[in-house]
Amino acid sequence: MTDRINRHWRLAAHPEGLAKASDFEWRESPVRTLEDDELLVRVLYLSLDPATRAWISEYESYVKPVAVGEIVRGATIGEVVESRNARFAAGDIVTGALGWQSFGISDGKGLLKISNAAHLPIPLSDWFAVFGHVGLTAYVGLLDIGQPKSGETLVVSAAAGAVGSLVGQIGKIHGLRVVGIAGGEEKCRWVTEECGFDAAIDYKSEDVPERLKELCPDGIDIDFENVGGEILEAVIGRLAQNARIVLCGMISQYNVTEAPPGPRNLVNVLMKRGRIEGFIALDHYARAPEAFRDLGTWCAEGRLMYRMDIVDGLENAPIALNKLFDGSNRGKLMIRVAESASSTTG
Amino acid sequence: MTDRINRHWRLAAHPEGLAKASDFEWRESPVRTLEDDELLVRVLYLSLDPATRAWISEYESYVKPVAVGEIVRGATIGEVVESRNARFAAGDIVTGALGWQSFGISDGKGLLKISNAAHLPIPLSDWFAVFGHVGLTAYVGLLDIGQPKSGETLVVSAAAGAVGSLVGQIGKIHGLRVVGIAGGEEKCRWVTEECGFDAAIDYKSEDVPERLKELCPDGIDIDFENVGGEILEAVIGRLAQNARIVLCGMISQYNVTEAPPGPRNLVNVLMKRGRIEGFIALDHYARAPEAFRDLGTWCAEGRLMYRMDIVDGLENAPIALNKLFDGSNRGKLMIRVAESASSTTG
Repeated sequence: MTDRINRHWRLAAHPEGLAKASDFEWRESPVRTLEDDELLVRVLYLSLDPATRAWISEYESYVKPVAVGEIVRGATIGEVVESRNARFAAGDIVTGALGWQSFGISDGKGLLKISNAAHLPIPLSDWFAVFGHVGLTAYVGLLDIGQPKSGETLVVSAAAGAVGSLVGQIGKIHGLRVVGIAGGEEKCRWVTEECGFDAAIDYKSEDVPERLKELCPDGIDIDFENVGGEILEAVIGRLAQNARIVLCGMISQYNVTEAPPGPRNLVNVLMKRGRIEGFIALDHYARAPEAFRDLGTWCAEGRLMYRMDIVDGLENAPIALNKLFDGSNRGKLMIRVAESASSTTG
Repeated sequence: MTDRINRHWRLAAHPEGLAKASDFEWRESPVRTLEDDELLVRVLYLSLDPATRAWISEYESYVKPVAVGEIVRGATIGEVVESRNARFAAGDIVTGALGWQSFGISDGKGLLKISNAAHLPIPLSDWFAVFGHVGLTAYVGLLDIGQPKSGETLVVSAAAGAVGSLVGQIGKIHGLRVVGIAGGEEKCRWVTEECGFDAAIDYKSEDVPERLKELCPDGIDIDFENVGGEILEAVIGRLAQNARIVLCGMISQYNVTEAPPGPRNLVNVLMKRGRIEGFIALDHYARAPEAFRDLGTWCAEGRLMYRMDIVDGLENAPIALNKLFDGSNRGKLMIRVAESASSTTG
């Protein structure tokens, strides 16, 4: 054990604005011996998500912020290399929030076996594009919080993002008209041509309120909100009666040093008897079995398109994170931490 | 019939900012003969409400705006003076939206008999302070939309207003801790000393975010929002987990010519898994029998305090309306249109 080295990133400072390399500190330390009930996981893949930026801010979000000196939080996929826990055995593929490190020691709590990894309808590297927190967020947010009815109009912001693209496709499966909002022609083309959205608005080159008016003549029944700010204001201006705004993320707000004005037209939520509801997928883990079963079925049927944006090497995590905020990433952003599941030494 | 004169106000222009006298036109015209199924109501009291301002704007709110040339919309109490409708008889006391006029002809739809007017626990003039749209709004908004649980903390803005003061008192009856926000020391004293609120914040002289922090150390579980703008932003900054914001009114927004920035901290609604829900009492008329039964009981038991602000004469309606927006009114604002129920000539 002592020859295993845990390479990891600790938080050096709560970032102001976009995270900088100097906000993180690289460390290498020997992996300690396991105690009773513990298991050692070699991390294969680390998920980078917009929420990561919220976790490393100094403000409490829905979980305690990562403290300076702590290992940066993050969802991971890994392989059990040693276990003193009865529920896990060496070779098990597991997912959990082991953070920005190459080896994680766990007592098994919050760790889920991807039990049939060999029979996954997709490569293991892609698991977070369809399942995990991303799949659960899209599934629960649209179906449980959004309460869609066939024939309704759904608008999805950050539509080409990991969650947004799934939401639109689940919406299509449930008989909704789906309009995406994304940045740039390429992303818009991807969500319409590959993901089957009915239409997409390029917020970088188009007038969002005008286009929403054209594309949602009867108003917006459900907004799956990932962005906030002006995009949210434009959506609120086109709400249909009894509209639901599923507040999933506000990516426009995570890196600001001074909060910009909120939507000027909240009064329209009142007039339309609308509902804005925030949710965190974590609270809905009880729904994971159904969600993953349905997502797995749709995925195996070829009804869920996704893209991967895999960056090699844990050392690149701090830089890669900002791809989520500068619009440059394409698909689910992941760090490949180790080469393959079969090599079990650090 | 032809000697009965209907004195009324028609809308002359959609106001910009606060309504001006010139936005209304006074008219007098003979009352026409009734047709089959119609009844004639002599209006006794006209209710002035914040919503009146929304109805006369040029923008569609939750109902069609009053068109230029139309009689101004408003809830009324009146006495049936003649009826060719089987459901109503001369002498019946009725309530409905007959508008800013001294006589109204109705086919009976949307008209409700205040059947036991003689046994009301309060004077007829005060009906809208406890019952009608005000009582229904407070009751449904707090209990159905707000879903209060005993021991929770409720914040009410425009707490000394007709709806706000009822909401706080219903909240106390349901075991909530109630903090009101109102403008001026006198209103704050009234809601705490007379209405039994646990505390009140004077937004004119106190730092609302600071005071909310002191008075709601565990956060705000329910916000009954009547104001919007900065008050709403302050409340969002103090939400407890799973908080509900009942969006009842946004009185700060009704007279603005340019919409001010919305809450900068909507992201907190997400982080706290909060819900903002707009509602319109009109949609909940099915709950009126239960609401009026409970309100009547509490009222008869002396558990509901209210104040009346009764202005004499229909001719004063345009000027009186602005009392709702300059903070000068005290209690439910009403126009006494006719002297008494017993005199039945115009």
